[in-house]
Amino acid sequence: MKLLEERIRKDGRLREKGTILKVDSFLNHQMDLVLFNEMGKEFFRLFGDEGVTKLLTVEASGIGIACVAGQYFNVPVVFAKKSKTKNIDGSVYTAPVESFTHGGVYEVMVAKEFLRPEDRVLLIDDFLANGAALEGLISIVDQAGATLVGAGICIEKAFQPGGDRLRAQGVRIESLARIKSMGEDGIEFC
Amino acid sequence: MKLLEERIRKDGRLREKGTILKVDSFLNHQMDLVLFNEMGKEFFRLFGDEGVTKLLTVEASGIGIACVAGQYFNVPVVFAKKSKTKNIDGSVYTAPVESFTHGGVYEVMVAKEFLRPEDRVLLIDDFLANGAALEGLISIVDQAGATLVGAGICIEKAFQPGGDRLRAQGVRIESLARIKSMGEDGIEFC
Repeated sequence: MKLLEERIRKDGRLREKGTILKVDSFLNHQMDLVLFNEMGKEFFRLFGDEGVTKLLTVEASGIGIACVAGQYFNVPVVFAKKSKTKNIDGSVYTAPVESFTHGGVYEVMVAKEFLRPEDRVLLIDDFLANGAALEGLISIVDQAGATLVGAGICIEKAFQPGGDRLRAQGVRIESLARIKSMGEDGIEFC
Repeated sequence: MKLLEERIRKDGRLREKGTILKVDSFLNHQMDLVLFNEMGKEFFRLFGDEGVTKLLTVEASGIGIACVAGQYFNVPVVFAKKSKTKNIDGSVYTAPVESFTHGGVYEVMVAKEFLRPEDRVLLIDDFLANGAALEGLISIVDQAGATLVGAGICIEKAFQPGGDRLRAQGVRIESLARIKSMGEDGIEFC
């Protein structure tokens, strides 16, 4: 998606010798709703004929784009909660997610009543890198016996293994901007 | 707002002898975007002539409604991050927030570059009870030297002290549903 690539070039900032991309001026701290609307529209163009009944994302930075996209799909949005608590009463699906940014493992959690076997679920997230968060969400969709339609991602770091690994497993992943490489010389898209 | 009150009566669930109101089927776990749009429209009706330049909310459950409302105001949305880290490089505003739900104190944090003295800021959140989160956001707006326009709240527990205390300080608070009392017999709105 040209609009997003251009925005990343214009307002994204590379830190730590080009190993970290900061997009917090428009994507995941301050959020540009004009851009979000265009991204939501694009996700709907890509997945709109798949009979999606629910969007699933994970707190916190996926919620905004999922809600804007949800307006185009006209379906509810569920966000998985990050939790350190255990599933004590069996009323929630949980999956462990390894955090590469912060280290350690956390749980993502969705109440069982909000994902049903008849649901056709589209995952939405702002970033895909190692794919750990997405795998957690996929596990939850599987546990619910629901159908996974695919994943709509804003920015994929295609030089990290998550996207390829999940596509090899048969997951349809559509990323609006795919970064081939980034470094001190800047960003190259796929 | 009748629509929200009716929805709370229909789908809200009282737990723990009526002391806890669960609205996670439409507000803060699964999110009903049709309802969110009506709420966003109502916030714009209430605050649309105030020259708002930015909406400010706090992760996670305020983000969805703030993003939908942001489309009507046509301004960016900033969400304060909850953080346990200290402000080491001076690039962020922070404020302590006491958590009554989980106990303890956490920090909310906004990067300085996203709040400017010329900004006119409307706060958005899903719940107002003790007012601790809202006070943290107000402190951040003050630190930035920006103008606080007010706060748009989905559900206010009017029997708890936050709303009255903040209104007494001159903050304009508009809550779409104000709960006067709740208990084993049900919910009464103001």
